[in-house]
Amino acid sequence: EAFYGKPVTVADREMVESESDTILANAQTVNVAFLVVGDPFGATTHTDLVIRAKELAIPVETIHNASIMNAIGACGLQLYNFGQTISMVWFTDTWRPDSWYPRVKENRDIGLHTLCLLDIKVKEQSLENMARGRLIYEPPRFMTVNTCLEQMLEIEEKRGENAYGPETLAIGCVRLGTSTQLFVSGTMEQLLDEDFGEPLHSLVLIGKRMHVMEAEMVRGFCPEKYQAKFDEIYKRDYES
Amino acid sequence: EAFYGKPVTVADREMVESESDTILANAQTVNVAFLVVGDPFGATTHTDLVIRAKELAIPVETIHNASIMNAIGACGLQLYNFGQTISMVWFTDTWRPDSWYPRVKENRDIGLHTLCLLDIKVKEQSLENMARGRLIYEPPRFMTVNTCLEQMLEIEEKRGENAYGPETLAIGCVRLGTSTQLFVSGTMEQLLDEDFGEPLHSLVLIGKRMHVMEAEMVRGFCPEKYQAKFDEIYKRDYES
Repeated sequence: EAFYGKPVTVADREMVESESDTILANAQTVNVAFLVVGDPFGATTHTDLVIRAKELAIPVETIHNASIMNAIGACGLQLYNFGQTISMVWFTDTWRPDSWYPRVKENRDIGLHTLCLLDIKVKEQSLENMARGRLIYEPPRFMTVNTCLEQMLEIEEKRGENAYGPETLAIGCVRLGTSTQLFVSGTMEQLLDEDFGEPLHSLVLIGKRMHVMEAEMVRGFCPEKYQAKFDEIYKRDYES
Repeated sequence: EAFYGKPVTVADREMVESESDTILANAQTVNVAFLVVGDPFGATTHTDLVIRAKELAIPVETIHNASIMNAIGACGLQLYNFGQTISMVWFTDTWRPDSWYPRVKENRDIGLHTLCLLDIKVKEQSLENMARGRLIYEPPRFMTVNTCLEQMLEIEEKRGENAYGPETLAIGCVRLGTSTQLFVSGTMEQLLDEDFGEPLHSLVLIGKRMHVMEAEMVRGFCPEKYQAKFDEIYKRDYES
């Protein structure tokens, strides 16, 4: 607040999704700034805020920001060659959603790369605390590249439509945009056991339509122990 | 230069593409910053600079930026529902490239939106001046949404593969991220004659997989005179 010289309210997901009236209150007469991570229009939440503001005749001005949706270009793959982005959530014993699978398949069928954004749980209640109405939150959790790969390979095995497989080339993209940013490329199987360190993690599945210059950059992110396999798969499945 | 407190060299496309050695000269020992519009890794040019820097063992640090590739979310369509981005160049009498057409068709076939980035000519020589080796540059030119639509409809008529048509819904997105930012939605045919004003212009073709909330935002950008048609086409082709 000292930095901005203004009062600051931290808005969690619940507040943004259920209490947008509070955020918009008085915005006809005073300036309200709503700060987000990444670009504000990546998903529907903030679009909804804009629609409500319009209904209340509140003028909205947006200042765009860098986002994983374009910063991912740093992994060496061209943004022009990306298809749909998907989100991966944590599986539970009873809930193993795979609605993202057809989207990955659509991308892969036409040779495009797929950016996978990984689940984040911040201020989540345990089922027990939720049932008892106790506002006790679990510690924040961030999905790793390893968990994402595990879940993806499980679903491929179950559905068997060959959208991708253990030998599909991929890139683990971690802490993107920070000073410890790291890219590691290899097959999905190889990356399963790789230690990527601290969050945030994202994953890219590489489409067959990989340009030579893209391949050169991506191979540069392949650890030596994986390179022979990388070159074999690249030659067999990717080179055109 | 006063603002940065450093000497600044304006790098045109020619310098970036042909004289990267100059840019990288001495970068082992002094700090060189290379500033770009948008995110640096949208296209191959800057990736090439990074590859060359690596070869010379020059450490590279990237600060990402907002880019049309995500700011386009402000048009009301979700970034998750975009397919491949294409670039449209000016047709000439003898050169009417349509290599972008299959990409648009791929997107449209699976219901995805397509962002079309429009040609910019800055510091271009006329053919005559080029032939005579005269370094005289034409005034900068920026493609309008109208020209893009005209060229797209011409190619659809020629190829006839029904990737889109005069009644496909689209959004003209102009001066995105500036204070005069404007979105106008309607059919491709309707937008052909719309006056969008000053550059920069971009265009989005809307895929059939348009969510109700996306449709609500997009309809908000439809001028009253186009609304009846918009609703008719939406009901006929888009609503699922």
